[in-house]
Amino acid sequence: MTVFLVGAGPGDPGLITARGRELIRACDVLVHDRLIADELVAEAPADAIRVGRERLGQDQISRLLVLYGRRGLDVVRLKGGDPFVFGRGGEEVLALAEAGVPFEVVPGVSSISAVPASAGIPITHRGVSSQVTIVSGHDPDALDWKALACTPGTIVFFMALGALGEIVARLVEHGRDPTMPAAVVASGTSADQRTVTASLAGIAHAAEQLAPPALVVIGEVVRISALLGSRCEMIPVHA
Amino acid sequence: MTVFLVGAGPGDPGLITARGRELIRACDVLVHDRLIADELVAEAPADAIRVGRERLGQDQISRLLVLYGRRGLDVVRLKGGDPFVFGRGGEEVLALAEAGVPFEVVPGVSSISAVPASAGIPITHRGVSSQVTIVSGHDPDALDWKALACTPGTIVFFMALGALGEIVARLVEHGRDPTMPAAVVASGTSADQRTVTASLAGIAHAAEQLAPPALVVIGEVVRISALLGSRCEMIPVHA
Repeated sequence: MTVFLVGAGPGDPGLITARGRELIRACDVLVHDRLIADELVAEAPADAIRVGRERLGQDQISRLLVLYGRRGLDVVRLKGGDPFVFGRGGEEVLALAEAGVPFEVVPGVSSISAVPASAGIPITHRGVSSQVTIVSGHDPDALDWKALACTPGTIVFFMALGALGEIVARLVEHGRDPTMPAAVVASGTSADQRTVTASLAGIAHAAEQLAPPALVVIGEVVRISALLGSRCEMIPVHA
Repeated sequence: MTVFLVGAGPGDPGLITARGRELIRACDVLVHDRLIADELVAEAPADAIRVGRERLGQDQISRLLVLYGRRGLDVVRLKGGDPFVFGRGGEEVLALAEAGVPFEVVPGVSSISAVPASAGIPITHRGVSSQVTIVSGHDPDALDWKALACTPGTIVFFMALGALGEIVARLVEHGRDPTMPAAVVASGTSADQRTVTASLAGIAHAAEQLAPPALVVIGEVVRISALLGSRCEMIPVHA
């Protein structure tokens, strides 16, 4: 009887880990995020309790995990991407630890690298980028723009589509080169994936028709996707 | 006939993706890194060609992938972690693209978050860190220490054990708080995992007995591992 925080990966159901899939197949209770692929939810036993989290807040999710965990059930908390990359998994394991409920974290494929990869972009590349900064774009006022504008290498923004115009303006205002290449990858690794590339100055306009979830990649590595050209079969990776 | 660049994950063989394992089981040729778990290499068909890369340079690996790919074989290039996070996967896919050999990238669980997680450390945590900088420590002279010392949030160093004393000295010299918590996780997620935590000023001394591969985590998130305490079953995650 344990609560397993399992990373489901970035979208493509084939990117679940072997261990994660094994746990889903054996669980008593599956508590899953909204964007989890139907194929993964369907892997749970027919008589398992399934809880989609649309109508539940973070506190309610944590309380639910404690409740089911205390009843001695095997609970899989299936989260998009990796539980500890903007996944609020830390809050859930702290709630379990405080309640004395055993838990285990099973990491997942994060969007960090997998989503750019699905658009032909390696986030690190010898001679081009050996540093990556990962940041949440949902609250631009919380960010240190001066530090961010001058950071070397690749920048990957999560949850940045809504504020993309403001993000670009602040980066350029603080000295980031407006001609630097940028990409937005929406629904990365899934069948609905869409990618646009442009200069940093033009990326917000280029991405106007895209919908979340989306990742924004800023840096010279974006150019590599063009070198890979049409031979690249990375869009999308399917199981 | 395709060359598949597959991320094997950080060490624990249970962290391979479902898609990656399926490809290994069906391959004609398996070209794998030195640190890949024996269990994963053993998943290849009995009659598959197996190539460990100990005695091969990066150029030779790329040439080998092109050669086998051109012969119409299904080739799995199995790489530690994720192919595009300091994995030189970009060089390999560029060589394949230039040679006209079809390829596909199957992302893996990167050490970025999985290795800190295996030591009870979430690299992002609400109210503590919403930014992560990932950097290679193998060549300290190549880094912008001023930018790195002032970057907010969590810093994750890859390949940093050899130069850890110098890394700490340069960060502190450029203004990073020497009392900030730090951790070194060696062989993360594997049976041999070892973790030490200390202040930034003390971490090089604390990690003296550890051997590569190791990840260095610097930031307030390191404190969360203590809150999770002995109830935390994250060390190590095994299949």
